[in-house]
Amino acid sequence: MSLTSVACCQLALAVGDPDGNRAVARRAVERAAAAGARVVILPELTNSGYVFRDRAEAAGLAEPLDGPTVEGWIASARRHGLILVGGLCERDEDGLIRNSAVLVDAGGVRAVYRKTHLWDLEKTVFTPGDELPPVVDTAVGRIGLLVCYDLKFPEWVRTVGLRGADLLCVPTNWPLSPRPAGERPAEVTRVQASASVNRMFVAACDRAGPERGVAWVGGSVVADPDGFLLAGPRPAYDEGLVIAECRLGDARSKRVGAHNDVHADRRPELYRSILEPARSADPAEV
Amino acid sequence: MSLTSVACCQLALAVGDPDGNRAVARRAVERAAAAGARVVILPELTNSGYVFRDRAEAAGLAEPLDGPTVEGWIASARRHGLILVGGLCERDEDGLIRNSAVLVDAGGVRAVYRKTHLWDLEKTVFTPGDELPPVVDTAVGRIGLLVCYDLKFPEWVRTVGLRGADLLCVPTNWPLSPRPAGERPAEVTRVQASASVNRMFVAACDRAGPERGVAWVGGSVVADPDGFLLAGPRPAYDEGLVIAECRLGDARSKRVGAHNDVHADRRPELYRSILEPARSADPAEV
Repeated sequence: MSLTSVACCQLALAVGDPDGNRAVARRAVERAAAAGARVVILPELTNSGYVFRDRAEAAGLAEPLDGPTVEGWIASARRHGLILVGGLCERDEDGLIRNSAVLVDAGGVRAVYRKTHLWDLEKTVFTPGDELPPVVDTAVGRIGLLVCYDLKFPEWVRTVGLRGADLLCVPTNWPLSPRPAGERPAEVTRVQASASVNRMFVAACDRAGPERGVAWVGGSVVADPDGFLLAGPRPAYDEGLVIAECRLGDARSKRVGAHNDVHADRRPELYRSILEPARSADPAEV
Repeated sequence: MSLTSVACCQLALAVGDPDGNRAVARRAVERAAAAGARVVILPELTNSGYVFRDRAEAAGLAEPLDGPTVEGWIASARRHGLILVGGLCERDEDGLIRNSAVLVDAGGVRAVYRKTHLWDLEKTVFTPGDELPPVVDTAVGRIGLLVCYDLKFPEWVRTVGLRGADLLCVPTNWPLSPRPAGERPAEVTRVQASASVNRMFVAACDRAGPERGVAWVGGSVVADPDGFLLAGPRPAYDEGLVIAECRLGDARSKRVGAHNDVHADRRPELYRSILEPARSADPAEV
């Protein structure tokens, strides 16, 4: 089975400068291609930046799937013969503003995913998706898409794993929050767990550079089906490439040891209660 | 809100020596109580040990809920005024052999959970449970129960979180497997992710001491609702106490930041597909 080089381009972007952001991303994709990458991932909202002043600013930066950002990604995919996954501030066919992940290859747009679980003020800007995340057959294997906060919902990750993704690509903008000394970011820990419970590769591409007072985890990583990190995160690392060689075919077996299979061992007939709402919050008396 | 001291007694046990195992566990519970523990967790299959030669050996070691092991736990709970969760090789009311977790307090047996996802040769020994894991109201808060490999099924953990557990207690016997230098055990990473996606405390109590050629991770930990470790794992640590002060009431709020709630932000209407079987295995062509 062959190796596929998977690269996350952790980028410093600028909110409100789509031309500049497209140029930064294009150069990063070129560097990734020169390093041998066949799959390249860009952060969430690569065209627009993240920390909008208000909905109107985001709306003014949103663009359709045939706009300059995705057209540029397709051109890069053709030029370098690679698969590119990027986060797009999208104006969809109905004029709604979406926080999307787009997968393109030399054939053009192969899949679009609209972020379903919205973080913080995204709720005031974006319309959440209500479709299952796509799992796309590509030249290197099956690739699934999610965006950032979606990873905090393991049942949502499961929908990708169960449909046979070899590699889950996740554009993210993880705002930095405090953590105990010596601890890995919790966001990275969740990537690792997502990989191991589904025995698939997971690549998350985070932001770099501060934006309007927000700093980022800088947590770009590639995790293998055992849940260990093949690349990243780099301490105090800012902009640059996090790249790993992945034997994506390893994700086709869900076996662990001689008698187990993490998908076949599931007991879906017992999981029905997770379709119900949570027990409502309950002031602490403990 | 008050602090509750939660202790995992990572124990070296001996397969086939229930009297010895009960004594080892009783002394460990005494040490935990002396250290101030209000909740004490023992490993999986504390009475029997784990590495059975065959089903007959396990059957010969199994005991009912009113057998000497659980009676001893109740006596310890009364003596020290604590809540005790232990793994039991159980002969149930129908004579079936179960890999169980039992929660006792001064009032006696409060809940029994029969492991639902069986690991390796357990499949030849135990009858899997088919009931939702219990979430028990106790003097210190709501406690949920799972056993070991169950943690690899985030939808199963979710059933505990959604029913309002403040603390998930998990007796485990994690067999040691290779991991890259500097990496935390994947089992521990999954505990951390389980805690953070449900914003509950998770305490996993692992085994110590080799048994018939099997070594253990020694990965006993207590994780907080942010997914960070309050105690454990200790490098090259064998038998002993892993103890942490937990503000269990923190698990009553599922809020993260000003606009999010990890339970209320779920989209259960979109998760139906996880009740279906996985896409079947598919030989790698990638």
